[in-house]
Amino acid sequence: MSEKQAKAVEIAIAYHRAWTTGNLDSAIKHLAEDVTCHAPSGTMSGSAAVRAFMEPFAATLTKSALLAAYGSDDEAILMYDTANRAVPSAPGAELYRIHNDQIAEIHIIFDRLPFALARGDVVGV
Amino acid sequence: MSEKQAKAVEIAIAYHRAWTTGNLDSAIKHLAEDVTCHAPSGTMSGSAAVRAFMEPFAATLTKSALLAAYGSDDEAILMYDTANRAVPSAPGAELYRIHNDQIAEIHIIFDRLPFALARGDVVGV
Repeated sequence: MSEKQAKAVEIAIAYHRAWTTGNLDSAIKHLAEDVTCHAPSGTMSGSAAVRAFMEPFAATLTKSALLAAYGSDDEAILMYDTANRAVPSAPGAELYRIHNDQIAEIHIIFDRLPFALARGDVVGV
Repeated sequence: MSEKQAKAVEIAIAYHRAWTTGNLDSAIKHLAEDVTCHAPSGTMSGSAAVRAFMEPFAATLTKSALLAAYGSDDEAILMYDTANRAVPSAPGAELYRIHNDQIAEIHIIFDRLPFALARGDVVGV
């Protein structure tokens, strides 16, 4: 990681640290009220929808590690790993677009397959 | 994306451009022979194994777009979207660690669920 962090990276890391430590009240302050979030399951609009999406997952975390964080003044990408009881390694990547010091857009990528198998939403053939 | 790109980002983009345009011979030149690649399905060792993993997917691409690329002299993260006939939007993120101007380590994140459903490897319950 670069030593002097661009503004967007600082905001992204603050958001990430907040939600991965279960502090959703603090995390949500970094999101624009009309944030757009593109997740594997579809696109959500609004900070309340993003909170409803992240909070149940955040509540299950047993481990979290930031692998890398880079960006510019208005964009940042984070890659991280997480663990919970169902899925011992669930890495994710998020791209943030920042507007007026808040997160206006998020692209989240993670592998839904181990979660879908653990929940019994799908079964192997 | 920053205008002046760090060395690792240049290498990552060159690798990405090569494999997403089906030029695996060129892509593979950016990989260290003993590259380690962490993918959702597990960890691979060696550039031949990475080529065997990437080439069938690269061959199916109907579209590819780079969403963002950032990094330093020895690390880069790319986020991109891809499309093929089975999966109309399959975004991915890759973190590269560069050593001696070659990619020594890759972390790839993508959602395996739509591919597993399309192939019939899993079915919804």
